[in-house]
Amino acid sequence: MSRSSSLFNSLDRNPANFAALSPIDFLAWAGEVYPEHCALIHGSRRQSWGETLARCRRLAAALAGRGIGAGDCVAVMAPNTPALYELHFGPAMIGAVLNALNTRLDAATLAFMLEFGEARLVFVDRAFAPVMRQALAQMDTPPVVIDIDDPEYDGDEAPLGSVDYEALLAEGDPQFVAPGPDDEWDAISLNFTSGTTGDPKGVVYHHRGAYLNAMTNALAWDMPRHATYLWTLPMFHCNGWCFAWTLAAKVGTNVCLRQVAAEPILESIRQHHVTHYCGAPIVHNMIIYADKRLREEIDWPVAGLVAGAAPPSAMIEGMARIGFDLTHVYGLTETYGPAALCAKHDSWAELPLDEQVVLNGRQGVRYPTQAALTVIDRETGQEVARDGQTLGELMFAGNIVMKGYLKNASATAEAFADGWYHTGDLGVIEPDGYIKIADRAKDVIISGGENISSLEIESVLSRHPAIESSAVVARPDDTWGETPCAFIQLRAGEQLDVDTVIAYCRERLAHYKCPKTVVFGALPTTATGKIQKYELRDRAGDLE
Amino acid sequence: MSRSSSLFNSLDRNPANFAALSPIDFLAWAGEVYPEHCALIHGSRRQSWGETLARCRRLAAALAGRGIGAGDCVAVMAPNTPALYELHFGPAMIGAVLNALNTRLDAATLAFMLEFGEARLVFVDRAFAPVMRQALAQMDTPPVVIDIDDPEYDGDEAPLGSVDYEALLAEGDPQFVAPGPDDEWDAISLNFTSGTTGDPKGVVYHHRGAYLNAMTNALAWDMPRHATYLWTLPMFHCNGWCFAWTLAAKVGTNVCLRQVAAEPILESIRQHHVTHYCGAPIVHNMIIYADKRLREEIDWPVAGLVAGAAPPSAMIEGMARIGFDLTHVYGLTETYGPAALCAKHDSWAELPLDEQVVLNGRQGVRYPTQAALTVIDRETGQEVARDGQTLGELMFAGNIVMKGYLKNASATAEAFADGWYHTGDLGVIEPDGYIKIADRAKDVIISGGENISSLEIESVLSRHPAIESSAVVARPDDTWGETPCAFIQLRAGEQLDVDTVIAYCRERLAHYKCPKTVVFGALPTTATGKIQKYELRDRAGDLE
Repeated sequence: MSRSSSLFNSLDRNPANFAALSPIDFLAWAGEVYPEHCALIHGSRRQSWGETLARCRRLAAALAGRGIGAGDCVAVMAPNTPALYELHFGPAMIGAVLNALNTRLDAATLAFMLEFGEARLVFVDRAFAPVMRQALAQMDTPPVVIDIDDPEYDGDEAPLGSVDYEALLAEGDPQFVAPGPDDEWDAISLNFTSGTTGDPKGVVYHHRGAYLNAMTNALAWDMPRHATYLWTLPMFHCNGWCFAWTLAAKVGTNVCLRQVAAEPILESIRQHHVTHYCGAPIVHNMIIYADKRLREEIDWPVAGLVAGAAPPSAMIEGMARIGFDLTHVYGLTETYGPAALCAKHDSWAELPLDEQVVLNGRQGVRYPTQAALTVIDRETGQEVARDGQTLGELMFAGNIVMKGYLKNASATAEAFADGWYHTGDLGVIEPDGYIKIADRAKDVIISGGENISSLEIESVLSRHPAIESSAVVARPDDTWGETPCAFIQLRAGEQLDVDTVIAYCRERLAHYKCPKTVVFGALPTTATGKIQKYELRDRAGDLE
Repeated sequence: MSRSSSLFNSLDRNPANFAALSPIDFLAWAGEVYPEHCALIHGSRRQSWGETLARCRRLAAALAGRGIGAGDCVAVMAPNTPALYELHFGPAMIGAVLNALNTRLDAATLAFMLEFGEARLVFVDRAFAPVMRQALAQMDTPPVVIDIDDPEYDGDEAPLGSVDYEALLAEGDPQFVAPGPDDEWDAISLNFTSGTTGDPKGVVYHHRGAYLNAMTNALAWDMPRHATYLWTLPMFHCNGWCFAWTLAAKVGTNVCLRQVAAEPILESIRQHHVTHYCGAPIVHNMIIYADKRLREEIDWPVAGLVAGAAPPSAMIEGMARIGFDLTHVYGLTETYGPAALCAKHDSWAELPLDEQVVLNGRQGVRYPTQAALTVIDRETGQEVARDGQTLGELMFAGNIVMKGYLKNASATAEAFADGWYHTGDLGVIEPDGYIKIADRAKDVIISGGENISSLEIESVLSRHPAIESSAVVARPDDTWGETPCAFIQLRAGEQLDVDTVIAYCRERLAHYKCPKTVVFGALPTTATGKIQKYELRDRAGDLE
């Protein structure tokens, strides 16, 4: 008997046994199998999956009718509304690429993004007509504007363009047969990085990655069919961490939300029996510190995912106290949002709360569909020891990593050097294999040859009752190379002096890690609410 | 601004952003993230995911050490034991192909399969030493035998070969770095069809399909992390409908089972708090008709999947009565096991039980990861009307369809004609889009130009209290072309005559559909327990 390694591999792909993976298929399934189930809640509007499928097909057909095709970019500037949700499917159905713009950005940045992505159309919610008017005015050949006239918008801005979203949909056939992508590697969306470290880069996602990450959100979070999901996380953040597509895969109900504030959040959870939501730490803090009466009738399990910054222990503890189940996830724009999670162990529940908080606050392990997440010593290129001490750079590899940066071959090559996606985050591997971020690479302070984690100092400062927020950066120093410099924003009505802060830190940190410089005042933030450390580094360098 | 459809698609795959999909990765995740969680229960044995990962790596390394490589076939003849479970990962880790043999087969068929698949090794549980000895004796160059000496085996058969499974594992490195498949399209397993219709065909699965179907089992069934799964379904059936891999993806606990009978099943469910299981109708009937005392302490939700034959209404009703949640799935060896499910609707629960039974008994809709399932008119090639009446052939397309038939290009081409996988099953599309099988194409009786579904007649017969099982086939008839001929096996101690049966049918069926001939006696079955209709057709043809 001859050994023939090609014995099994001579059978080729054909239309009967191969199909490109695409999350638009989840919508088709939801619309065909559960046409009557509620897909979207927005104010008094209730839209079923059957209607949503038909509307997305109309959208795809209308776009095609206006000459939009595979590889064309379609931008949108809108809060978490049904139109933004539908835009996650309609363009993808004809191979077009969605660029959901961050609604907090300024006109110049928006103009840059529209130019850079070569957007042919831009959908604009009336609330953002003024900033988009300014942005378009800065462009040589601005895209065609489609206005989204959301009935829940209660402002008085006039529409910007001449075509309304609903009128556009009326141009399309609700029975349109979507061709889908030619290849699962084709682009589905463009998401710009937040630009804390310089120019925003255009991160390109593909259908395969979006499909796998959408499924994995459900798999990793045990999200059941017909979950009810509240849109506290902006859909413009990594396509809502791919949850726009996850909700279709689980035939859930999307509860839209124009305004992210404690009262509308808790009122939506109560009224619509919300079971799941995601958000940055601030969203969870809103819930924790909201008036207790707003939570009174919420007596079912609610699960939240938190990412975007390491959650302080007070937040993890606060969520546990109000009975919400919080899971920490980690990822970047380049990894479709979460590509790691702090997978919980039953045995942790038996530990004292403070230990649970430490365990659950870690970045954790790769998503089950991500091939690898590890920490690499930047000098040796080897994985660091699992000692919880040795710092290295967090690296991902696998299907939950972007295609690359648009029109930026050098940044793409740099990000993918040595077969890894380089996150720029520094961390350690703990003995159980869970990864914990120590710091952004550029936020590490190197003082007297020792690496100091600015995050560790900030974590200590955050626990001081008078401190609202803080940021620690490196200040150049002739003797030590660098020393930690703390910028501190106090809570309203509170006062502190420099010596008190330093003494407070010395009680809680190794001496060399304590700030040598303390500056009080408001902290500068980006449009997404992240503290602009690069600006603080400039300020620290200029200090006398 | 120029339109450039290649704008987004110039970004290529590289090791940082692409990995071949393979279910072996689920095992790596389970073993790395939940090393302490129980993976396997077998008698008094408890094996963690960490141990299972290490053992599978040992197995892969040992196989590689013995010269087994990519594309080589490794066969196994064993009941649902830890060794058979581990064999779903070890060979795949080095690109080898698993052929899990049906333990009910005869020596000649087994020899045929080993020859046909070019198996280089065969793992043999001691219980099957005699039949395998006969099988190997019929081969010119038999594969090397590795004995599985399962401590739970209580018979007295001697081992067949010279190498023991545990000794083989000892040859391998538990830290072995598995290369995995070169390509996700590479073969992962070989599963022979049951051969009810002639020679068994060798169905080849690939890593991509196994990965997607394993994930979809969890997605479609809402199977939570750490589910406890009882192995009532043989792993040699389509790799346990891909649940061998699903359990790793959800880090569940596999409860092994050598003997499928009411008492061990219910005792395992009770003792290990089993939450999920799968099986042919006979498994569910065992549970329904078991001594009530065996079920007494089982007061948690237990979910079962049923497939393999349309579940009679009495079975669906019986499961509902004992509080087990039954879901009907549909598929074939060619579709990795289930590739369709009868997805439930909340509104159904409000209907009378008999209506629920009818709705839940349908084959349903495609799995969310399968691209398409429909019913095609065999003459026009078009989808049939959604009227619940018009018969056509059920067709699948998508990623949950085999690579093809091994060494059988003509059967492969025929199966994949016109871009569809042809199931050979006939059915209808109901107005809600759910598909219902009327019959196997070859089981349709064409009498006086009318199609008669043998299944419909069998369904009526199955409700007669004296009838244990029945099979209806076509009998050649000079006047009508064919007429229905019913073979009936009575319950122990029961008696019936031909006229009573025919009169019973006439009260419940259109006249032309009633059996013209009735034969009493035991029904012939295949090794997998399916009734051998081809033999009955022969008998019907020979009747005077």
